[in-house]
Amino acid sequence: MADADDIRYMSRALQLARRGLYTTDPNPRVGCVLVKDGEIVGEGWHERAGQPHAEVHALRAAGARARGATAYVTLEPCSHHGRTPPCSEALIGAGVDRVVAAMQDPNPQVAGEGLARLEAAGIVTESGVLASESAALNPGFIQRMRNGRPWVRCKLAMSLDGRTALASGESQWITGPAARADVHRLRARSSAILTGSGTVLADDPSLTARPDGMDDSELLQPLRVVLDTRLTLAPTAKLLSQPGQTLVLTASDDAARRQALEAAGAEVAVLPVRDDRLDLPAALRLLGERELNEVMVEAGPTLAGAMLQAGLVDELIIYMAPQLLGDAARGLFHLPGLATMADRVALTIEDIRAVGPDWRIRARLK
Amino acid sequence: MADADDIRYMSRALQLARRGLYTTDPNPRVGCVLVKDGEIVGEGWHERAGQPHAEVHALRAAGARARGATAYVTLEPCSHHGRTPPCSEALIGAGVDRVVAAMQDPNPQVAGEGLARLEAAGIVTESGVLASESAALNPGFIQRMRNGRPWVRCKLAMSLDGRTALASGESQWITGPAARADVHRLRARSSAILTGSGTVLADDPSLTARPDGMDDSELLQPLRVVLDTRLTLAPTAKLLSQPGQTLVLTASDDAARRQALEAAGAEVAVLPVRDDRLDLPAALRLLGERELNEVMVEAGPTLAGAMLQAGLVDELIIYMAPQLLGDAARGLFHLPGLATMADRVALTIEDIRAVGPDWRIRARLK
Repeated sequence: MADADDIRYMSRALQLARRGLYTTDPNPRVGCVLVKDGEIVGEGWHERAGQPHAEVHALRAAGARARGATAYVTLEPCSHHGRTPPCSEALIGAGVDRVVAAMQDPNPQVAGEGLARLEAAGIVTESGVLASESAALNPGFIQRMRNGRPWVRCKLAMSLDGRTALASGESQWITGPAARADVHRLRARSSAILTGSGTVLADDPSLTARPDGMDDSELLQPLRVVLDTRLTLAPTAKLLSQPGQTLVLTASDDAARRQALEAAGAEVAVLPVRDDRLDLPAALRLLGERELNEVMVEAGPTLAGAMLQAGLVDELIIYMAPQLLGDAARGLFHLPGLATMADRVALTIEDIRAVGPDWRIRARLK
Repeated sequence: MADADDIRYMSRALQLARRGLYTTDPNPRVGCVLVKDGEIVGEGWHERAGQPHAEVHALRAAGARARGATAYVTLEPCSHHGRTPPCSEALIGAGVDRVVAAMQDPNPQVAGEGLARLEAAGIVTESGVLASESAALNPGFIQRMRNGRPWVRCKLAMSLDGRTALASGESQWITGPAARADVHRLRARSSAILTGSGTVLADDPSLTARPDGMDDSELLQPLRVVLDTRLTLAPTAKLLSQPGQTLVLTASDDAARRQALEAAGAEVAVLPVRDDRLDLPAALRLLGERELNEVMVEAGPTLAGAMLQAGLVDELIIYMAPQLLGDAARGLFHLPGLATMADRVALTIEDIRAVGPDWRIRARLK
């Protein structure tokens, strides 16, 4: 059980880390607090890749008062030279006495190295204070370090009876403005938004993040990823002319179509086919290689169901509108082959909260 | 705005009224508190039809101290001779000074009469203190007094993607023990449980109330009502041998089948046909005439949808299990003719709360 002071200062460090929610990609959100004689002498958080890490900001703020201080940091300080010098060196150089980390480096191959380096320099280290809170801030970075693919969050909007649209396809405005604003915040924290060419054809969406109170200078537009097995996406699709980049993943070698899409600003990458559709694990591995942390899936029941059945969905965000559409309307997930109750997909519902007149359900796959 | 003392004492009266939740049928749940010089001098609640009303219990407890007291009562005191003498007379006789009612008598034809009678005897009266809280305790009694039919609560259990059963019909244990215990409490407060013959044929349910910690002497088993247009119910159906009564509503005049069901203990009543199915408004009127207050519908998507489309459902109670069954599985409501978003059924979600690993959604029809 952690000390009450440790929890208090780590909570503050997490609060600081959260300020990087929309900007640190592909790096994790990290915060740091330096405490000496019961007083905070320096604070910092990581803002953007290529810029200093949280520890460096906090050490600069503390100056000479860092000597003999305790550093609270939401992720184990790095021990390698990346875009910036290792933070463990900076902490050693500043003369801190003790380092408390919320969690170790999620990369199993380097986990503990930063702390070991600090210990070798005579610094007391501790790890595991508010670990799950820290992990919740960086699900994508952690997933990518551990499994080489992004964290996949599947977003859906449904009626109370589990329907996304009428049989005719009519679905506009199933949820209200508060839910839509919430979606834009989720998009803004995502590295990419993934959809299928069918959804683009049906709805011609922009798939940009337009969160209230934030302008384009404050956020990185998520990459739009379109799964398009047969390369049917029209070069006139609205999402190709939006701010940010579009990546089309296909199994087609049609050079003319590819050139037309590239001329419209898209990047096109070819993937293998698996079980008669684009190889989904390969697609996710590709997105992991591109250092995308959190991917939000906004797709129809076929792609959403295929992702789910391939074990590639980590989290569901479902906006539930207070209305009924009836059993002829469209469902959330197409799950072919689910024949007995033993096959059902088990979830843990993490929380449900009101968002205007609608409700947001957050669930994890078991 | 009501006085803080008034709200406090009325809250206590409502708390007392709630003790009659499982026993007052066909009467409403009513509580009464007598207060004199800032002190509660008598309390009471209505327990069972035929027994004294809440006011009489409270007056008996107060004895001579009722003189000059204020009576808080969750429903306007009655002014008519029913199974017991009018409570307004008892309050006048005891010499109370002031009567505060949460709400007037829901029967529009006699609303205000009890208060008028008290006023005529020189007693100060007030009404409307915690009115909606009182109404929430007696939705069935109020609905029946105002519209001649019971309050209809439609209960369903679904997966997170809005499915009640697999296409094969397999559905057992979609929700956990805590949700099932909650259903038994809802059944126990209901005057009747309504289902269709298709559900009886498929599941052979008992449809009895078996709430934890209560034995049969403490509750009235709800009437089981089976809508069975063609009188196909088997005399061997399990629900016919359970404690409590079963009423079969049919459009069939098959005397042999009727006799067989009657021999098995059921009562059979014949209703007209409307739009190729049993006349649902007529069925609800019949249940209203039989003084049934709250009716819980536990039925399949066809009957639940037909009730909904006939405007006969007041409230939905949906237990949502943390699992996905896919879009081939069965839906909640069959709503034929719902062709555009303008036709969707609008709801107000009143609350959502965790019940074990499942979640309970309570919604009202708009």
